[in-house]
Amino acid sequence: MTALKNDTFLRALLREPVEYTPVWLMRQAGRYLPEYRASRKAAGSFLDLCKSKEFATEVTLQPLDRFPLDAAILFSDILTVPDAMGLGLYFAEGEGPKFERPLRDEAAIKALSVPDMSELQYVFDAVSSIRNALDGRVPLIGFSGSPFTLACYMIEGGGSDTFSRVKTLMYDRPDLLHHILDVNARAVTAYLNAQIDAGAQAVQIFDTWGGALAFGKYQAFSLAYMQRIVAGLKREADGRRVPVIVFTKGGGLWLEQIADSGCDAVGLDWTVDLGDARRRVGNRVALQGNFDPNALFAQPAAIEAEVARLLSAYGAGSGHVFNLGHGISQFTNPEHVTALVNAVHHFSRKQAVR
Amino acid sequence: MTALKNDTFLRALLREPVEYTPVWLMRQAGRYLPEYRASRKAAGSFLDLCKSKEFATEVTLQPLDRFPLDAAILFSDILTVPDAMGLGLYFAEGEGPKFERPLRDEAAIKALSVPDMSELQYVFDAVSSIRNALDGRVPLIGFSGSPFTLACYMIEGGGSDTFSRVKTLMYDRPDLLHHILDVNARAVTAYLNAQIDAGAQAVQIFDTWGGALAFGKYQAFSLAYMQRIVAGLKREADGRRVPVIVFTKGGGLWLEQIADSGCDAVGLDWTVDLGDARRRVGNRVALQGNFDPNALFAQPAAIEAEVARLLSAYGAGSGHVFNLGHGISQFTNPEHVTALVNAVHHFSRKQAVR
Repeated sequence: MTALKNDTFLRALLREPVEYTPVWLMRQAGRYLPEYRASRKAAGSFLDLCKSKEFATEVTLQPLDRFPLDAAILFSDILTVPDAMGLGLYFAEGEGPKFERPLRDEAAIKALSVPDMSELQYVFDAVSSIRNALDGRVPLIGFSGSPFTLACYMIEGGGSDTFSRVKTLMYDRPDLLHHILDVNARAVTAYLNAQIDAGAQAVQIFDTWGGALAFGKYQAFSLAYMQRIVAGLKREADGRRVPVIVFTKGGGLWLEQIADSGCDAVGLDWTVDLGDARRRVGNRVALQGNFDPNALFAQPAAIEAEVARLLSAYGAGSGHVFNLGHGISQFTNPEHVTALVNAVHHFSRKQAVR
Repeated sequence: MTALKNDTFLRALLREPVEYTPVWLMRQAGRYLPEYRASRKAAGSFLDLCKSKEFATEVTLQPLDRFPLDAAILFSDILTVPDAMGLGLYFAEGEGPKFERPLRDEAAIKALSVPDMSELQYVFDAVSSIRNALDGRVPLIGFSGSPFTLACYMIEGGGSDTFSRVKTLMYDRPDLLHHILDVNARAVTAYLNAQIDAGAQAVQIFDTWGGALAFGKYQAFSLAYMQRIVAGLKREADGRRVPVIVFTKGGGLWLEQIADSGCDAVGLDWTVDLGDARRRVGNRVALQGNFDPNALFAQPAAIEAEVARLLSAYGAGSGHVFNLGHGISQFTNPEHVTALVNAVHHFSRKQAVR
């Protein structure tokens, strides 16, 4: 394997000294980039993009060619695992992901099992291909949805504002939800380990919907399963630690507990005060975040001011990976992203993050 | 004025001794009740319901006739104030509230002014009529949307998942957003004071969207204006204190600051641990909440278990008003609401809330 030319991201995740604050953006390969839209048109559909290692490699590298980002992230979908379980993932135009066969009765839930990882070979092939194409430029991040977030889609059959089906199951038949989460946790562990084997140098668990849970329920139905995954992951590859990032959107209230999950870093949305978060987690973990993606709609001068404010809230010293608090909007002007990334590097060098 | 037969709700808000934990439910007069659906059909539209004091009185009292609730809440909409400003509130079928003339340029924003309260006389007439019809059964709550929440609808023109317009304005032209919020705060102050004059015995400010803001922005663009309203409210009527409840959905991280706004009680959504919240606010304010409305989809036994858990998390002593963490769903079974309300009264009497 080629040596990494820029390992700032990995060092920041492990709270080792860095020269500046590394930055990557959730959904950095995406519709806001004209070159992405061209690739997607050429590929056919979103799933066609994900399932072709050539296209997945092409779009993963696109944002790196435009912006001096410090990490690449596998181009894929968070719902590949339940798709491999046979639920039939599809994308209805303008409606987000859906499943043809959502879990709607006890028999379907009891029949659920960890899929054979060969069903997900196209993901591992994409990881190897991207890692190869990166040629050591920056580290490659692998990822998965969290067991609870996967369960939301598996039970609701698609997105939801209220999660009434999954919550009804949780309150009425917690045993059935625990069964789904147990299968999901084992599947995600195998899935992320296979990504690490294929070349992922860090992994992130996206818990997009854990924040919809009540206090107590989050701990029992989302965090506990992420903790099991973290405990089951290979934490070293090529003689280097493979850091794990846990990101629960809306999880700011539970930060200390997430930090105790065994992960190396906690992702934060924009509602959290970064300085306060740092005090709360102490030396346990690094922090990733937490710029409001909507602030990218503002003019570059306003973006730069927000970046400076956020870096100063974290303060000097390593342990911070700059990111958005959620995925970048498809309506973002790429020139504003240039302003953001340059501002992160510029201001953090001045702030002497070492 | 008739003396109150049941003032448990008001006493709990002021942390005075009570015999049991009082309960009311956000959106308790609503589509989950067949009698409400019949009234709405008879009235015509949702706005017709709000604008007729007879219908508003009828539907406000419906849940009280079914469940032993400890407070009534004015039946109205949170967007009456911007409607009176001339923005043209309407409801597109199945789409939520919209404005015909949203604020889309500097001229429209600069032209905004506090409406003459006579434009909202139908609301104050409804308050008087409901208060009269209640005849002292339970206290009547008046309410308004928060300045920021109103601004979201006024700028976006309707609901939004991302609030990209309002946030772009906030980051690029904070002066213009502050102007809107200043007008809104003055209008809401006058509006709530007129509700108090008409007979409201407590008031609640609904900050439905403040939780979408980044740390720092929430304090400057939402909380600061609610604080100004609280400072400008009449706090006594009929020789009794009129308590003010501030509810920011998703505001659990900022609880201490909300508690310092001058309000008597803070509303909580279900993500907050009620016991932890009580420790955080100490003796400053009462707490209202925070049952997950989705738990009402579960069977009565599960609902009762959740109620017991929540009451026990708060612990003994006054200062808790039981409520949901958000409005009740239209798909809720009314019999499950009976189970909830009875369980609150039953378990809290056993717990000796005094």
